[in-house]
Amino acid sequence: MEIKIVRNVLEENDSLAGQVREQLRARKQSMFNFMSSPGSGKTTLLQHLIPILGEKGFRIGVIEGDITTTCDAERLQPLGIPIAQINTEFFGGDCHLGANVILGGLAALPSELDMILIENVGNLVCPAEFDTGAAANIVLLSVTEGEDKPLKYPLMFRKSHLALISKTDMAAVAEADIPLIKSNMRKINGVIEVMELSGKNGLGVPELADWLIQKHKALV
Amino acid sequence: MEIKIVRNVLEENDSLAGQVREQLRARKQSMFNFMSSPGSGKTTLLQHLIPILGEKGFRIGVIEGDITTTCDAERLQPLGIPIAQINTEFFGGDCHLGANVILGGLAALPSELDMILIENVGNLVCPAEFDTGAAANIVLLSVTEGEDKPLKYPLMFRKSHLALISKTDMAAVAEADIPLIKSNMRKINGVIEVMELSGKNGLGVPELADWLIQKHKALV
Repeated sequence: MEIKIVRNVLEENDSLAGQVREQLRARKQSMFNFMSSPGSGKTTLLQHLIPILGEKGFRIGVIEGDITTTCDAERLQPLGIPIAQINTEFFGGDCHLGANVILGGLAALPSELDMILIENVGNLVCPAEFDTGAAANIVLLSVTEGEDKPLKYPLMFRKSHLALISKTDMAAVAEADIPLIKSNMRKINGVIEVMELSGKNGLGVPELADWLIQKHKALV
Repeated sequence: MEIKIVRNVLEENDSLAGQVREQLRARKQSMFNFMSSPGSGKTTLLQHLIPILGEKGFRIGVIEGDITTTCDAERLQPLGIPIAQINTEFFGGDCHLGANVILGGLAALPSELDMILIENVGNLVCPAEFDTGAAANIVLLSVTEGEDKPLKYPLMFRKSHLALISKTDMAAVAEADIPLIKSNMRKINGVIEVMELSGKNGLGVPELADWLIQKHKALV
C-alpha cells in the first residue's frame, strides 16, 4: 500500500519535471540542482561561483530551498541576483524540493536569465528521489563527513552527474582520505565526474564554472 | 490527500512506538535515539561511549540504522556487544527508522541488556518525525556544519532532549562560534540540554555517559 502511494507521488513528480524541462527549453535556460547534507558548503560555494559566472556574462538566478528560514537567501542577496525562496514547511517541513515547487520557483524568476541554480534542502537522502527537471544533479560531500558516505547513501551518488569534494582546505585536519572518497564515489557510479574544491579559498570553483558553462552551451 | 496519508503513517507509527515502550518497560531496559546529519560523528561517539558505560556495569546493545551497508556496525563490532543491523532499503532507501523496524531490532537483541542505543539514519530532517519509542532523542551537530543549522532544521532540535555539539577539536579550524550554536539551539527549544564533546579526544564523553545513566535510573 505505502509503496503504491510513493510510486504515484514519484510518477506525478516525473511528469511535472517534464513540464519544468519544457519551460526551460522555451526560455533557453539551463538549470542545475545542488544537493548535499546540511553544512557541506552549498551556499558558500554559490557565493563564490555566481560572481565568476557573472563575469563571464551569464545572468544567474537561484531557487533556494529550505524547510524554513531565509538564512541562505540572505547570504546570497549581496550578489544582487534574483532569488526564489521556497520554504517547504509542511507537517514540520518537507525534506526535499519536488518538481511542483520548482515550477513555482521558475514562475517567480525573470524569464531573461541564462542559468538557474537550485540549492536543494540539506539532506543526503530524499532530494535524490525527486527529479527537479534540472539538466544535471551535483552533489557536494565535504571532507569532514567521512569517506564511507557514498557507500552509505548510494542513491544520491547514483543520481548525480558531478560530485564535488568540498572543504578541501580542511582535509589534513579532518584526516580525510580523498582518493578513498573518490574511489567510493566511483564504486557507486562508474561514470560520475568528480572535482575537488574549497569555498573558503576558492580553489576549484573556476573549474566548476567552466563545467557548468560547457553543459549550458551543449543544452541551449 | 497527501497530508492525510502522511498523518495516517505517523499515527500508525505512534501506536507502534507505544508498543516499543511497553516492551522496554517489561524488559527493564532504557533506549536512547541518536540522530544527526551524515558524518556528524554518531558512530565515533558510540565507539567511545559504550566502553565507558560497560565499565560502569551497563550491558549495552545497539540498533544500527542505515539505508544500506553494515559499515557502522562493523566499526562497533570490536566492542563485542550485540548489534541489530537495520537496512531500510526500499525504493532506493528509507530515510529514517520507524517504530516498526525498532520492534524488529528489539526482537533481535538479548532481553537481558540494560540500555539500547539507536544510531538512526544520517539525516537531520526525517528521523525527527518518527517516534522510535526511545526515552530520549539526542541530536549531534558537528562544529563543521555551521551555526545556523538549528534554525534551518528546527523540528530535529524541537524533538530532541539533548543536543551534542561534536568535533569540538575542530572548532578553531572550522572557525565555529559555539556560543552562537548554543543560542540558536535554545531559540528553537528553550529547554534543550546542550553538551560539547569530541569523539577524537574523548572530551565530554564521560559526562554524556553520566547523563544517560541518570536518565536510565530514573526510568527503570
